Amino acid sequence: MKSIFGKNLTVALFGESHGSAIGAVIDGLAPGIELNLAHIRRQLDLRRAGANAALSTARQETDEFEILSGWFNEHTTGTPLTIIIRNRHTKSHDYERTKDLLRPGHADYTAYAKYGGWQDFRGGGHFSGRLTAPIVAAGAICEQILTAHGIIIGTHLAECAGIADTPFPTSEAALKAAIESVNTKPFAVLDDMAGEQMQQSILAAKSDLDSVGGILETAVLGMPPGIGEPFFNSVESVLAHLVFSVPAVKGIEFGAGFSFAQMRGSQANDPFRMAAERIVTQSNNNGGVNGGISNGMPIIFRTVIKPTPSIYQRQQTVNIKRHENADLQIQGRHDPAIIHRARPVIDAVTALGLVDLFCETYGTNWQTDI
Amino acid sequence: MKSIFGKNLTVALFGESHGSAIGAVIDGLAPGIELNLAHIRRQLDLRRAGANAALSTARQETDEFEILSGWFNEHTTGTPLTIIIRNRHTKSHDYERTKDLLRPGHADYTAYAKYGGWQDFRGGGHFSGRLTAPIVAAGAICEQILTAHGIIIGTHLAECAGIADTPFPTSEAALKAAIESVNTKPFAVLDDMAGEQMQQSILAAKSDLDSVGGILETAVLGMPPGIGEPFFNSVESVLAHLVFSVPAVKGIEFGAGFSFAQMRGSQANDPFRMAAERIVTQSNNNGGVNGGISNGMPIIFRTVIKPTPSIYQRQQTVNIKRHENADLQIQGRHDPAIIHRARPVIDAVTALGLVDLFCETYGTNWQTDI
Amino acid sequence: MKSIFGKNLTVALFGESHGSAIGAVIDGLAPGIELNLAHIRRQLDLRRAGANAALSTARQETDEFEILSGWFNEHTTGTPLTIIIRNRHTKSHDYERTKDLLRPGHADYTAYAKYGGWQDFRGGGHFSGRLTAPIVAAGAICEQILTAHGIIIGTHLAECAGIADTPFPTSEAALKAAIESVNTKPFAVLDDMAGEQMQQSILAAKSDLDSVGGILETAVLGMPPGIGEPFFNSVESVLAHLVFSVPAVKGIEFGAGFSFAQMRGSQANDPFRMAAERIVTQSNNNGGVNGGISNGMPIIFRTVIKPTPSIYQRQQTVNIKRHENADLQIQGRHDPAIIHRARPVIDAVTALGLVDLFCETYGTNWQTDI
Amino acid sequence: MKSIFGKNLTVALFGESHGSAIGAVIDGLAPGIELNLAHIRRQLDLRRAGANAALSTARQETDEFEILSGWFNEHTTGTPLTIIIRNRHTKSHDYERTKDLLRPGHADYTAYAKYGGWQDFRGGGHFSGRLTAPIVAAGAICEQILTAHGIIIGTHLAECAGIADTPFPTSEAALKAAIESVNTKPFAVLDDMAGEQMQQSILAAKSDLDSVGGILETAVLGMPPGIGEPFFNSVESVLAHLVFSVPAVKGIEFGAGFSFAQMRGSQANDPFRMAAERIVTQSNNNGGVNGGISNGMPIIFRTVIKPTPSIYQRQQTVNIKRHENADLQIQGRHDPAIIHRARPVIDAVTALGLVDLFCETYGTNWQTDI
Repeated sequence: MKSIFGKNLTVALFGESHGSAIGAVIDGLAPGIELNLAHIRRQLDLRRAGANAALSTARQETDEFEILSGWFNEHTTGTPLTIIIRNRHTKSHDYERTKDLLRPGHADYTAYAKYGGWQDFRGGGHFSGRLTAPIVAAGAICEQILTAHGIIIGTHLAECAGIADTPFPTSEAALKAAIESVNTKPFAVLDDMAGEQMQQSILAAKSDLDSVGGILETAVLGMPPGIGEPFFNSVESVLAHLVFSVPAVKGIEFGAGFSFAQMRGSQANDPFRMAAERIVTQSNNNGGVNGGISNGMPIIFRTVIKPTPSIYQRQQTVNIKRHENADLQIQGRHDPAIIHRARPVIDAVTALGLVDLFCETYGTNWQTDI
Repeated sequence: MKSIFGKNLTVALFGESHGSAIGAVIDGLAPGIELNLAHIRRQLDLRRAGANAALSTARQETDEFEILSGWFNEHTTGTPLTIIIRNRHTKSHDYERTKDLLRPGHADYTAYAKYGGWQDFRGGGHFSGRLTAPIVAAGAICEQILTAHGIIIGTHLAECAGIADTPFPTSEAALKAAIESVNTKPFAVLDDMAGEQMQQSILAAKSDLDSVGGILETAVLGMPPGIGEPFFNSVESVLAHLVFSVPAVKGIEFGAGFSFAQMRGSQANDPFRMAAERIVTQSNNNGGVNGGISNGMPIIFRTVIKPTPSIYQRQQTVNIKRHENADLQIQGRHDPAIIHRARPVIDAVTALGLVDLFCETYGTNWQTDI
Repeated sequence: MKSIFGKNLTVALFGESHGSAIGAVIDGLAPGIELNLAHIRRQLDLRRAGANAALSTARQETDEFEILSGWFNEHTTGTPLTIIIRNRHTKSHDYERTKDLLRPGHADYTAYAKYGGWQDFRGGGHFSGRLTAPIVAAGAICEQILTAHGIIIGTHLAECAGIADTPFPTSEAALKAAIESVNTKPFAVLDDMAGEQMQQSILAAKSDLDSVGGILETAVLGMPPGIGEPFFNSVESVLAHLVFSVPAVKGIEFGAGFSFAQMRGSQANDPFRMAAERIVTQSNNNGGVNGGISNGMPIIFRTVIKPTPSIYQRQQTVNIKRHENADLQIQGRHDPAIIHRARPVIDAVTALGLVDLFCETYGTNWQTDI
Repeated sequence: MKSIFGKNLTVALFGESHGSAIGAVIDGLAPGIELNLAHIRRQLDLRRAGANAALSTARQETDEFEILSGWFNEHTTGTPLTIIIRNRHTKSHDYERTKDLLRPGHADYTAYAKYGGWQDFRGGGHFSGRLTAPIVAAGAICEQILTAHGIIIGTHLAECAGIADTPFPTSEAALKAAIESVNTKPFAVLDDMAGEQMQQSILAAKSDLDSVGGILETAVLGMPPGIGEPFFNSVESVLAHLVFSVPAVKGIEFGAGFSFAQMRGSQANDPFRMAAERIVTQSNNNGGVNGGISNGMPIIFRTVIKPTPSIYQRQQTVNIKRHENADLQIQGRHDPAIIHRARPVIDAVTALGLVDLFCETYGTNWQTDI
């Protein structure tokens, strides 16, 4: 499999940053879903460059999407739904000048090695973060399906440029409010003061011709127990697979994650208790997943996003044609941070993965079986 | 897909802890591989309970494997290779007594929710860590294939019970020596003094009727650039998918991993340089992967293993039949730590994932094309 | 994919004719199915050599199966179910003598070309018709699932050695009776006189050291409309895919099949009519499938089985080691016809394909959702 | 899987007859293939309605294709290649009037049953034969890949409206000439007199407001031995799967096909002989495939195409909204025969299937490894 994911809900991703269009075919949607186009639009806006001029690239793409197939009389048809977004604001000559100079931290060298130089190098080609736009569109449809089943997803900047946000609260009522709150914010933090500081730090990095990274915390509320497959297709396997397909992600941890290394079993285990008619755990160190299967508690995971590799400082590199050392000063329009733009992408892939897993047990028709 | 992984090299895993046998069908091996049975045996021994009596469960399984198919005249045939391991030292009555009491941190509740009570509950059934034995056997074959292509994999206990080992060295020559060294050790550390302390801490936890976790660091040396697929099937996606299928894994990070959150782009980017005829990076913060594709530097990742959930202390839980709170005192034979036993499993799934990705570009026949 | 089939219900087939065992892993069964072992046993007996001494090979295999996993307290667990059948009555030396002589009509040469000589050549190795035994076992479970949903499958010898049986009747009541009748017969014909003649013709071929083929007609009664996927995963695509995986099958036609070539649209189209509350077609030229999707009428298809390639006459061939012409006189124990033994295999793969397609829309849990 | 096919070369098909566009994402093409756009254009023209005004629908689509991704500097990039074709000459109101009347022989009822009425009903929606245009485009690229490896595919109308063409010749030299000849003809027959009669019969059916079907014979010349997988992914399984995804196909037979029913093994078996350095068979009853694997002889198969279901005669049907019997007189623009237009589609899916199977053994890079 190449740029395709999903067994029950399959997404075939295509396009290059400076080609004519990017898009995705989404196959496996149930018929009769009244698409919430405004939600797709909103999620695309959150991801879009230009939504926050100071923090983001100056590339102005409106990201207007066109649905080519699978949508009729305002509803899904049940046949493959195709979304394309035309590339309009391309300045490909920025890349012509430096096309033989491998940008550190990018896929230039690895794509060259893989495709023998035939890849579209302009703006990263197929490896561009721009390809996450159709993922966000596909994910927005899946979020709508999950919401109809009482499942909501939210992600905030748990840390950016070394500044920490408040973590998601543990009580389900407070978590629900927190998810709803961050989902309306262009710069998604729980503590707006911390958010202000993060933005200052991003701008400080920008003025240093540099960039910053951070950590996203994601919560899924409302999952029933019993979703996920044993071993090779656990909830964690599927979500990690998808999250690592998002450019700049370099790590993921569920629940207590790397902190488990310092715990003993007696602290780490989450004791079961009855709460009204429901089985719950008193703590949630396992992040809502036991043995790879959802246990009904909120699914919690944290994703690290590395600093944007495109920085304006002079960098050491190699000229791939001449096979000699060279210096590179990157041209083009780049973000000093992408973590706030990665946020809706993480939500999107989470939704994709969960819908895929639900359909495994309950079939395609589960999507509209409310 | 359920307990099946791999597109080009497919592993179908089966069995339950207290059933008659566990095993795997490995489909996609090239014909004509002279299997190194001693290496399979050695890796199974590293994983096996009972290899280190004090640190591990008292369940004494010899894990003798039988090859049912796909192997003829000492070589692979190219048709599906099936390995089974009989379960012999089962004491199922240990589980009968407490079968309605959900063990915290285990898959008891989630399997119950998923399978409606029909699952084999004895010793975790299909969710048992015992199922990693056939994975280790399959991985050992893949390691042999990779070794023939000059690629070696090694994993050590970077941290256990709060005690840190020396990290893998950065120079390739030193890394090679380190991998070769840890691959011969039953308790895989670079610093034997640290290893001694870890073992003391494990025994201390054991005497407290408790358990400990830790972090494994894995290195892959000798990877050519250009392996992996863009987006949904990146090296990181495939390895993370597989690593999270190993029970008790709760996080993975590549290269600098979660430390990227505190870095700026100018520190994080790995500058390219020519080294003799080869393109290398001066640092390896990206852990050998750019844009999801191998860049020829060592692939480095760290995996967190939670403390063994089976502890002998009294724990709070729920009786699943009566739907009421209860106390549980676990019976049976359990490890105070499983991290040293998880080590060969991580090596195994890494090898499986890499062979699958190589075959994507180069076909099944690549395996013997040396 | 190699010897693996099925997206929702996956069968991984393994083994060689003269290896230690053959078998299959069946992943995707719902939990809680009380397996009808007697039905599995009966279908295996129908397929088995030796059931009818005169018509079949003298190889006496009892085909006792062992369930290694996925079955607990007489029910499926929901985790992978593994069935193995040991090979006991092997006479491998029959093959040693002639192992360099390619048997015409068999896979000897093609396997040699594919596997470079590493394949197990004894008795056809992995390509042996013996591998259909685990397929029959897997199919028997699927037939049980379908029966519980009111869907029954039957196959008879529509033609053998040039002698024709009565075709399946068109009325659903008569068809039901016909299916139930043939399903109890070791030599499955509707017209027992024709069956008698077929058996005489088979024995005549046998005494000529020769073999015969024939045509199987299969009917599926009780299918609801709406099953199957458009284009690449139509009912016809999936069933044809599976039917061609049965050794000796060389053609398949649905409904009027090759007769459509002589029809006009006005004859070929099946007019719709209301029948009580149900939409039916007045004729069934399309064999229960329109546009690749079931239309609620009986699914009807015909499969041609070529004559057994193993005949005792002297044949012209090539010595693969010496690359020179040679004569071959086949040793071993072979059937003068395999069509009556192929019958339960066609039923089995039909059931496998249909369950896979049902689960696509309705999920794994559909299997027990009656 | 829904409208997706191929493991190594994956085609995701999308679109509806009267939607905004139809197309396909082709993932798994090697980088650096210089696309022969003229060949794609020519194959699309052969398939296109309107190419032969008298024999075909009056719908005038130019079928101009746009490559949205995966193509750069006149070569494939190695990332997903997307082709779209806009629908321009749609007259959707033809369908509005009769949208509740199920067209006999079409997918109207089955799509309704499957999608609960949400499907795009206009012109068959996703089930329209128009969807074969992107398949032809994808196949044309695969034919180009195969041609570069010395493998050529050709299909002719072996029978149409009861009139037979000369079969493909058996000698490889004559077969090569025959394939090259039919590949240049808009109405592909070997015997032009027979072709003339077929066209007269089609026009006769047209004047009777009726339609005709026929049989296509396909040959693949130049296949090496050893391609295909045992059992579930045989050459026959994969080609039959794909061929049955073409609308109107109701049967397929390889080599002697249904004639095997009247043969004895001594006639059916193809004896092996040395011919120069090569192993060949003296006859080719098995159609180039033994045990599911190519044997190096020409692959020969025949496909039956049913008469176009859209006829202008008054037909009996059901009103799906009212659930009552009704009469239907079809509007719109339809072909009295589609067999000549199905021809390039059969070539296309054959090429897709073979490239997929080659890549299984030899990897993606085989495509350009000449």
